[in-house]
This record gives sequence, C-alpha cells and structure tokens, in this order.
Amino acid sequence: MKHRKPREIEVCFSPQLIQFVGIRDELAVVVVDILRATTSIISAISNGASGVIPVSDLEKAKDYKKQGYMVAAERDGKILDFADFGNSAFEFQNGTIAGKTLVFSTTNGTVAIELANRIGEVALGGFSNLTSLASWLVERDKNVLILCSGWKNAFCLEDTIFAGALTEKLLEMGNFQLNCDSARASADLWQTAQKDVMTYIEKAAHRKRLRQLGVDDVLAFSFQKDTTDVVPVLKDGKIGRAEGNGWSEPKL
Amino acid sequence: MKHRKPREIEVCFSPQLIQFVGIRDELAVVVVDILRATTSIISAISNGASGVIPVSDLEKAKDYKKQGYMVAAERDGKILDFADFGNSAFEFQNGTIAGKTLVFSTTNGTVAIELANRIGEVALGGFSNLTSLASWLVERDKNVLILCSGWKNAFCLEDTIFAGALTEKLLEMGNFQLNCDSARASADLWQTAQKDVMTYIEKAAHRKRLRQLGVDDVLAFSFQKDTTDVVPVLKDGKIGRAEGNGWSEPKL
Repeated sequence: MKHRKPREIEVCFSPQLIQFVGIRDELAVVVVDILRATTSIISAISNGASGVIPVSDLEKAKDYKKQGYMVAAERDGKILDFADFGNSAFEFQNGTIAGKTLVFSTTNGTVAIELANRIGEVALGGFSNLTSLASWLVERDKNVLILCSGWKNAFCLEDTIFAGALTEKLLEMGNFQLNCDSARASADLWQTAQKDVMTYIEKAAHRKRLRQLGVDDVLAFSFQKDTTDVVPVLKDGKIGRAEGNGWSEPKL
Repeated sequence: MKHRKPREIEVCFSPQLIQFVGIRDELAVVVVDILRATTSIISAISNGASGVIPVSDLEKAKDYKKQGYMVAAERDGKILDFADFGNSAFEFQNGTIAGKTLVFSTTNGTVAIELANRIGEVALGGFSNLTSLASWLVERDKNVLILCSGWKNAFCLEDTIFAGALTEKLLEMGNFQLNCDSARASADLWQTAQKDVMTYIEKAAHRKRLRQLGVDDVLAFSFQKDTTDVVPVLKDGKIGRAEGNGWSEPKL
C-alpha cells in the first residue's frame, strides 16, 4: 500500500449539513449536482472550454456577458435571452466553447462550491468522470468529502447514488476506510440502484421534480459513466481542468 | 379505501433540514432517536410512567428533581449522582416508575421534539412500537413526517432504517404515497438492513460511536419490533400515552 494509514471518505447530503462534517484536515471536497451543474460543467470543459466561472445570480451573469464572456443561463429548462447557452450538458457540443471561459449560472452549485472551498481542495464530480476523478483523488493523498448539492437543500437520490458509486470506486482503487453513516448509506443505495439506474432514478426522483428541473433531455447522459477523463478543479473562483496534480489557467 | 386521496410520507434526516420539508399542513410528526431518547421514553411509558417531560439540559433536570419529580439523566452511559435512573430503556423495568411522571434529560431529543411541535402533532417512534404507531398514524388521517434526530445533527443509519421500516408499514396498512427521496432512500436501506439488522447496524454505525453512546447494553432491544402497543404523544410540553385518538394527562 502506498499510504501508511487508510484515508477517510465522508458524504454530506446537503450544504446545510456541512458544519457537522467530522473530518476537516487534509481534505479534497467533491461537489456533486448530477442533474445540472456538475454534469454540465464537466461537459463544458470536456468540449474545450478553458475554464468555467460559476455565478449565483443572473445579474452577475449579465455583467460578465457585457465584459465579453460567453454565458450559460436558463430558468425552468429554457435558455435566457441574453445567454449564449442553456445549462444542459448537450449545449456545449457544437465547438463554439473551445478555448473560451464560460460563465455558468447556478444557484445551488455556486453555494456548494463556495462552502467546499472553505474547507478543502475542490473538484467537481459526475458519472461522466467517475473513474478519472477517483484516480485523481487516490493520487491527491487526502481524505475525501463528497458534498451533495441536494434538491433545494434537501436530500436527493441522484447525488446520493453518485456519492455511493464514487465511494465504492475509491474503496476499490485506494487505501480508504469508511467511518461515516452517510457514506455507508450511499454505497448501499448505489448497490440497489446500479442494477438498473434509469428505472431506479425515475422511480425515485419522481417525474414531476425532473420536469421542474428541465432535465428530460439529458437524463440518460447524466447517469452514463466515464465518458470523459476531465477532472474540473477550483482555483481563485474559477474552475479549470486538473492536469496531473496541477491546474490550467482558464482564458477569456 | 377510507381516505379520498393518498396521504404523503416524508422523511427528514436531521433537525437541521426541517426548514426544507415540503409538506406542512395536516401533519403528524414522528420523532425518532432509536439509540436512546425515543426507545427509552417508549419503554418508560410502557412500564407504567404516566408521562415524560423531556428536558434539554442537566440544570433543568436538577430543578425538577428538587420539585419531587423522578429524573432520568446520564452522560457517557453513566447515571448521574442526582438522578433516579440512567437513560437506558432497561432502567424502567423494576416498577418504581409506575404512575409517576419522569423527567428525561436528552439534548438532541428535546430539540427534535420542540421543532416537531411547531409544525404538527407529535408522536414518538421506535422499533418497539412500530406496528402500533403505524396503526395510530393510519387512524389520524394526516400526512406523516418522520423526523430523525441524527447523530450530532448529522445523518445516522439507525434512525434512517427505522424511518424505512415505518414507511413500508404505512404503505402496507394505509392509503399513502411517496414523493420524497428521503423516504424512498430510507425504505431501500431498510430492505437491505432487514435481512440481518444487528449485523447491518454494527457494520454501519461503527462500534466506536455506539460505545460513545453507551448503548451496548440495549443495542439488540433497540431493534426489536413490536414489544409494546404504547404510542407516546406530546401535549403541552409533556409526553403521554395516546389512547385511541386521545391523550392521558400525566401525573406527578
């Protein structure tokens, strides 16, 4: 084994519970918002965006637009007038984002990222980068906190089963141990869900809520594993692609 | 079917998340703290206590003692000098509690009960009263919120698998539906846990935490189903036995 003693994995089901997280030192924090922010930001960077700036409100997004940035912003699943893109992971596949910095409007995502940044090194996780993210975390040699954004601050199943999938992957690949009930529950729920993820998630995160999120288009994509090797990491308020143990500076 | 439209079941994993609960009207709230407060209070009433007053701090408990009440109070699994009983469910089996009102010192339990009281009618749940509680809830004709006390405000598995067991029982016995991810997750975790509850809970809520709680003595009892038909309910800050749809006044 590379590491002298096993590292811990902890899962936090809501930004509202972050003050009750046990481990605080030497922490890599994985922010998760499967049905929108993190899956979409991973997609933007995979499709060539040099960086992503998450912003919490639309006024800030408009200010950035005036400065010449490309902006992704939607409400209720519809792209907004002033924006270049909506928030779906599919928006960034036409090549226009390559080499550019994208401003991404996401209320919950921004809150989770800011909280995560206060307590550790921040990476973004989704099913699309599951294995690459796990490899990167194993290399970082830190404890891991998986921070679920949740649905309006409440527990949600889509983030939780991802937390379970990542927990299992880390236990397989690295020298980790579990002393956290949330991580154990996530792994057990992933065991149940993985037999048929789409059926599970449609049963679980009921159709009404999914429609409210406007994610019908990318639902299957959001649960597809390992479609990219991009690991987005945060530095100075901007999200860029982790390269080895480093980070590449986003460009306007 | 007795009820015109199905009622909702919602689960809240921590008192800290109660402001994000969706349903608020016509609510029966089940407070759960399996490894101490609720299992023990159910035991006290089953063993003849006419009522229980939950208090959050030891000074209050001492004041009640001076007034002539019997008091249950412990720290780190040890009964305190001034108290008549510790907080274990086994403390109340020797008959001395019969007909008396017990003051029960519990920090987390009191917080959860006070929060629950603000939003609905309050009952206390544990494996020991699972089926009786479910019957009572079916009769109440209200939506059900299951409020887990958690471990130091964080998610804990023992409360969650009880929430899952109660959710399944209500779906079996009454006209309920699930539109809540936490309730769905709890039911799925109960499906996994129920095959061998003791093995599951010892793996999950790791030994160190259980020792800190001082519950080694009553661990098996805390997960034993339907040992009583008592349903404790709250009225005017005191917990008494529900009788039909009523409530009996506790006596000093």
